[in-house]
Amino acid sequence: MAINTAQCACRWILSRQLKFKQAVRSCHLQTKQALGPEEYKQYEDESEFTFKFSELTTTLAEPNQLRSKPDVSELKFGQVFTDHMLKIFYHEALGGWQKPAIIPFENISLHPAAKVLHYAIELFEGLKAYRGVDGKIRVFRPDLNMNRMNLSAKGTGLPTFDGMELIKCMNRLIQVDQEWVPHSEASSLYIRPTLIGIDGTLGVAKSNSALLYTILCPVGAYFDKGNESVSLLADPTYTRAWPGGCGDRKMGSNYGPTIRVQSKAVRKGCQQVLWLYGEDHQITEVGTMNIFMLYVNEQGEKVLATPPLNGLILPGVTRQSIIELAQELGNMQIQQRTITMNEVVRLQQENRLLELFGSGTACVVSPISSIDYLGSSIQIPTTQHSKPLYETLRNRLSAIQYGHFEHPWAIPIE
Amino acid sequence: MAINTAQCACRWILSRQLKFKQAVRSCHLQTKQALGPEEYKQYEDESEFTFKFSELTTTLAEPNQLRSKPDVSELKFGQVFTDHMLKIFYHEALGGWQKPAIIPFENISLHPAAKVLHYAIELFEGLKAYRGVDGKIRVFRPDLNMNRMNLSAKGTGLPTFDGMELIKCMNRLIQVDQEWVPHSEASSLYIRPTLIGIDGTLGVAKSNSALLYTILCPVGAYFDKGNESVSLLADPTYTRAWPGGCGDRKMGSNYGPTIRVQSKAVRKGCQQVLWLYGEDHQITEVGTMNIFMLYVNEQGEKVLATPPLNGLILPGVTRQSIIELAQELGNMQIQQRTITMNEVVRLQQENRLLELFGSGTACVVSPISSIDYLGSSIQIPTTQHSKPLYETLRNRLSAIQYGHFEHPWAIPIE
Repeated sequence: MAINTAQCACRWILSRQLKFKQAVRSCHLQTKQALGPEEYKQYEDESEFTFKFSELTTTLAEPNQLRSKPDVSELKFGQVFTDHMLKIFYHEALGGWQKPAIIPFENISLHPAAKVLHYAIELFEGLKAYRGVDGKIRVFRPDLNMNRMNLSAKGTGLPTFDGMELIKCMNRLIQVDQEWVPHSEASSLYIRPTLIGIDGTLGVAKSNSALLYTILCPVGAYFDKGNESVSLLADPTYTRAWPGGCGDRKMGSNYGPTIRVQSKAVRKGCQQVLWLYGEDHQITEVGTMNIFMLYVNEQGEKVLATPPLNGLILPGVTRQSIIELAQELGNMQIQQRTITMNEVVRLQQENRLLELFGSGTACVVSPISSIDYLGSSIQIPTTQHSKPLYETLRNRLSAIQYGHFEHPWAIPIE
Repeated sequence: MAINTAQCACRWILSRQLKFKQAVRSCHLQTKQALGPEEYKQYEDESEFTFKFSELTTTLAEPNQLRSKPDVSELKFGQVFTDHMLKIFYHEALGGWQKPAIIPFENISLHPAAKVLHYAIELFEGLKAYRGVDGKIRVFRPDLNMNRMNLSAKGTGLPTFDGMELIKCMNRLIQVDQEWVPHSEASSLYIRPTLIGIDGTLGVAKSNSALLYTILCPVGAYFDKGNESVSLLADPTYTRAWPGGCGDRKMGSNYGPTIRVQSKAVRKGCQQVLWLYGEDHQITEVGTMNIFMLYVNEQGEKVLATPPLNGLILPGVTRQSIIELAQELGNMQIQQRTITMNEVVRLQQENRLLELFGSGTACVVSPISSIDYLGSSIQIPTTQHSKPLYETLRNRLSAIQYGHFEHPWAIPIE
């Protein structure tokens, strides 16, 4: 059978349609950033490049597969998981994203050469669902996590998707496991969307197959109780992220290399690492948290400072929320700028350093009590004030999350 | 029943014996580096801290599980795997390393929260087995890979082991799959030992369970044929490694973040990335290879230069072998030192730059033809000499690997 030119052209286009789609999606994401989400909305039609909530299937666990729920007062972070999970495969050879499925929680079967196991082609997000005082379950600013997840995906050559579709699928998963959302304002349900490259081929290259899955775990406090404020080791020997790297993406590769430094901190009697950068020892992040400093400037005004989004730190959802809440409070200057250890030491010596605290989804807001730096221990009076800022912010966040009043950041799941 | 002091002390020791063992092993590894392997041997008794080859069990694949072997002339890198694999579990709660097992090649089943899938707690090695001209199968310098693998393990909080025991287990695996070692001097059997953290718990922390496994794949040339010399993109926007990071360990986290930059290189018509570091644009690595430069100095002498082991590059086994072979050749100076792009450009302009080539287990020795740098294309005459050094070194390495003569680097498996 002869093939005419038109048929040939059609085949060429069909065989490349996924690449075209991905190129268009990449372009969309950049446009979205440039325009802002509001203006972008009117141009949005991304359904071609994503899995769809409308195609979600649900297979419920058998009664004998259901696990017993733990005592919420005993909950440790990330140890216990709910009865179901969400799985969505991506296979370039099959046209891209497949249909999402909620299934009973089970192990994942991977080819031993799967790229995630060798080259860390992997990324994740962390967000939480809260059982409000009105009994409704709310998720905190999931749109921000979805935007960040898509940016991380681009950084690893993994496929992007429509974040709203994933939010809807995850909400359904939470509904299925809703009895796992703790009935307690000290606990919540941690949501962990994860995207991994599963091509069973060696060689450092883009993964043509991927698995996006989400697991849920009821969680209590991230750090041990009775020891709320954390001590830090600031050792300029170690660097977490650098310009031209990926320190601002939530990729697995940012975490593995931190284990040995975290172990050193614990050996030195500290709880977390304060990551420094550069010859002037800029402070960047605390363990897996962003960091804030409240101090009094030379004019006697209160200033809340936090390192800028310069590629060296993760753009935290809690970080952004704290900045916005502090702006609403209105009684302090807010600065996103470089902070050096010299400045921390000087402010502390001059009694102008009021508070240092970390922020993150897992830990929420975590006061810092001391920094072990170049052989001396810097004591921080974070918890020694009446009505400290970190507590005000934490209470405000908590009130939003647990539905003490309606707020656009805490979105009830239907 | 009353417990006396002696019983109490014994329990305390027993409950901590694994930590003691690991501390002692860590100390051993440092001593081994300080003393050198020869002197260290007399003190060696590491059997307590490792799995043992003597406990290896083998389960052969059923005849219907055996796969057909590919045509060696068609072999691409890392696409086809042999019939068996080696698996060794580590569970701190069970006393550490379990018995090694060779089993039919199969998928790996992981808890969805396994640390390897979220925090890149993973590392690997790459080495090769060659079918010599005398029919014997030889492995190239496996001891160096084992030393590096243990150093990587320490960097990720994963358990260390006796490298000699793993070599023996891997040799047995190669024997079982010996028909997969290509009968060709253009091909070899690539060996991929991999160590992953498999604790099914969220939270960035040491993994108390791990899986060490090894898979094998017959491989041809790493790069496509007919295009032996590679073109590079040198873009100072991107940085692979940083002082205080882990760029000198073979950890998964060094590879995931490179995918996007590699894609950019390909979009710009180049094959690989030349990774630069610092304001003076030091050259560090090429894609996944070390790099060498042969030039004529101002005194008219030939010099072979390569970046130093300063933490920013992987300490390659092929790199070390090339340095040692070049020393034997004796007709050039050899320098391990910082090389900047300015120097490369100047040497090329003054016609004193003779060769640039990459080295690695997968690619062996790979000549470089051009560098795309700050908008201009630097042409390198690597392949335009008669009897170029890269070819001499590659032929020499090949002769050792394929047993053209006996050499201590190429160790026949029994």
